Amino acid sequence: MKRTQITLSESEIPEYYLNISYYLNKYLGKLPDPPLNPATKQPVGPQDLSAIFPMELIKQEVSLEEKIAIPDEVRELYKLYRPSPLIRAHRLEKMLNTPAHIYYKYEGVAPTGAHKLNTTLAQAYYNKKEGVKTLIAETGAGQFGSALSLACNFFDLKCHIFMVRVSYDQKPHRKTVMQIYGADVTASPSLKTEFGRKMLQTNPNHTGSLGIAISEALETVMKTKGSKYALGSVLNHVLLHQTVIGIEAKKQMEKAGEYPDIIIGCVGGGSNFAGISFPFLADTLKEKNKTRFIGVEPTSCPSLTKGRYQYDFGDTAQMTPLLKMYTLGSDFVPSPIHAGGLRYHGMSPLISFLYNEKLMEAIAYDQKQVFQAGIDFARCEGIIPAPESCHAIKAAIDEAITAKKEGKKKVILFNLSGHGLLDLNGYDKFLHHSL
Amino acid sequence: MKRTQITLSESEIPEYYLNISYYLNKYLGKLPDPPLNPATKQPVGPQDLSAIFPMELIKQEVSLEEKIAIPDEVRELYKLYRPSPLIRAHRLEKMLNTPAHIYYKYEGVAPTGAHKLNTTLAQAYYNKKEGVKTLIAETGAGQFGSALSLACNFFDLKCHIFMVRVSYDQKPHRKTVMQIYGADVTASPSLKTEFGRKMLQTNPNHTGSLGIAISEALETVMKTKGSKYALGSVLNHVLLHQTVIGIEAKKQMEKAGEYPDIIIGCVGGGSNFAGISFPFLADTLKEKNKTRFIGVEPTSCPSLTKGRYQYDFGDTAQMTPLLKMYTLGSDFVPSPIHAGGLRYHGMSPLISFLYNEKLMEAIAYDQKQVFQAGIDFARCEGIIPAPESCHAIKAAIDEAITAKKEGKKKVILFNLSGHGLLDLNGYDKFLHHSL
Repeated sequence: MKRTQITLSESEIPEYYLNISYYLNKYLGKLPDPPLNPATKQPVGPQDLSAIFPMELIKQEVSLEEKIAIPDEVRELYKLYRPSPLIRAHRLEKMLNTPAHIYYKYEGVAPTGAHKLNTTLAQAYYNKKEGVKTLIAETGAGQFGSALSLACNFFDLKCHIFMVRVSYDQKPHRKTVMQIYGADVTASPSLKTEFGRKMLQTNPNHTGSLGIAISEALETVMKTKGSKYALGSVLNHVLLHQTVIGIEAKKQMEKAGEYPDIIIGCVGGGSNFAGISFPFLADTLKEKNKTRFIGVEPTSCPSLTKGRYQYDFGDTAQMTPLLKMYTLGSDFVPSPIHAGGLRYHGMSPLISFLYNEKLMEAIAYDQKQVFQAGIDFARCEGIIPAPESCHAIKAAIDEAITAKKEGKKKVILFNLSGHGLLDLNGYDKFLHHSL
Repeated sequence: MKRTQITLSESEIPEYYLNISYYLNKYLGKLPDPPLNPATKQPVGPQDLSAIFPMELIKQEVSLEEKIAIPDEVRELYKLYRPSPLIRAHRLEKMLNTPAHIYYKYEGVAPTGAHKLNTTLAQAYYNKKEGVKTLIAETGAGQFGSALSLACNFFDLKCHIFMVRVSYDQKPHRKTVMQIYGADVTASPSLKTEFGRKMLQTNPNHTGSLGIAISEALETVMKTKGSKYALGSVLNHVLLHQTVIGIEAKKQMEKAGEYPDIIIGCVGGGSNFAGISFPFLADTLKEKNKTRFIGVEPTSCPSLTKGRYQYDFGDTAQMTPLLKMYTLGSDFVPSPIHAGGLRYHGMSPLISFLYNEKLMEAIAYDQKQVFQAGIDFARCEGIIPAPESCHAIKAAIDEAITAKKEGKKKVILFNLSGHGLLDLNGYDKFLHHSL
């Protein structure tokens, strides 16, 4: 009989995170340009970041070590839901009538339904260890907010979440999830911060953006004693934590007896894409194999495919350091698509660097195309994917169709970063032609 | 380090269903009283049921075989999400400061979020095999409707679902899930059937009940060519299919090196409870061990704890055979609690028989108690449980507290029959004190 799920046992949860910077340094001889202090235009040092991040995460941000050990307490919590399954998409292949072998790594098994918990558990741990009392953050679609709320609950930290207003309205249940775990949730832009009030003055019906929500979160950290900030994507340490995905996937692909020709993930800030690809990219940098890495974004927020590679702020109020990244401009407000997790003007500096070095490719699709792909996938494989993940599915389907045209048995691996059970509004609109 | 998840591989998905009737017959020497034809008061024969069920399921309903092979095509589809995890609830134990060992079998990993898919895949398969074109059914909370929609999609059958109106209104996203899989969904009582129209005449704002929805589904089967009915619980063949849960759990408990002293599941129609307990009950009947089996129901629909053990109709229009079961009366309309899956006037004849024979216990809790248990569980273990499953959690917590008072290391196993991500309205109301 066909093999469908490739299972790992609890003991095979990774014991370390993989640091791609080590490989870029060693095999490429180059690293991304560092973040700059906007006032001095000098590379930021720990003192620039210590107000918002604990020292251990600042160290991870700049580390060139190959591997960083996962703390026991974090790994214990990973056991609640990891290792995540790797599934061979037999039925999808059959529907497409393709010779390609399609695999997906399913991160939707996490209690909060997506990959974000992989980093929030680590971030909450390091903050707790350094005596922090409260974590404050923004969330777009709500997956990061949910995951941070749960991690803060596990480590007995308070949690305040600023949720992009359009998502707060479209996805009310995400708020309930965060409240179940004990967090406070505020729709952004809000009246709670100077910057939020300024945004609401210009437009009382402002739908919000991740850039604005980040600004509100940072402003609140600055004025709240014992608090720090937690980021859902973009920065190196967040991408580092997500490599548990790809490290497990490598073991699982070995058990399946195959190695991916193509690796695909959706890109918003870049963390789930990094998670699935970096452990394989390490091989590519070392051995110069021909694996292709494809990041997939929405046409309504095309940071890689239409952005400029330059220094820009990570947030709209221009409070963050300057990051060298593909950007649409820090004041860019994306249209209110349902894939809220991908509505970010910028991109991880690491991912941006890889794209600029042509070590990866990028492609953009519009909302209707990706929802159709999500429905096709649900009808083949059962899982209803998160709208963000639908972008990866669409690209995987297209690559499988190309493989069919070329008559080639390509091995395609994509990250199914989350399920869509808390995003059914979007599917409902798509089914009733009101997207 | 502590062991948390006990994982099985794909090859350990059961190859057969376990038939408790074989054990009741062999070791107890007794069987439940059979269903009766209401007109003749004689036991129903295949001819009474062949209009609504395919012959293979009718055979399973009355079989005394010990094991019934799971068809390859069904087992292939189980591979999409089984085996399901067995998880040791270390954090819950710690919070309760109990010497008890608590394990939960987590069926929420199914794409539709609960255990119902285990039976709908089998039912769709057998119907397809016998040339049926359409399956028609009722659903309460929507989990059965979702699972049947997906199964019909997999086996290329049409699917019509009558959804209890109060749940249709409280849980709009369930409708979207069913539509993603290609089913039609109607709120019940509806204008589509004679019985529905009659109910709406007596009360245009009727909140509906499973009993009424079953009547509408059956009436529609009678007048739709090439269609049959699918039941979510209650009947023997449905409970049979659910034994994959307990067969896996037995293997997992063996790997954990423990055997349960107490097994707990919520009871609406009885299928998830049967699923987790019957493979262990087989041991009890054979070896006369002291394992306790506890069914947990809502105080607002207390079929076991307050019902009468007698012949009654399975539906409100009195179209079904008479079933010997604990019943609150086929015209009973439960209050609109959020645990929609438990809002049924009757109970599986098998479960009813076991309760009457004192081979199991039953306990009832009210809605607020169980939501509090659900929140406590979510904060310990991460998973937000389905309101139905919260009943089992509450009982497990109470047994763990008793174990603490008695100073005994009891081994408690409960079925976490589903996650609650599509039931967040109920949690929201509980958190805001408007339940």
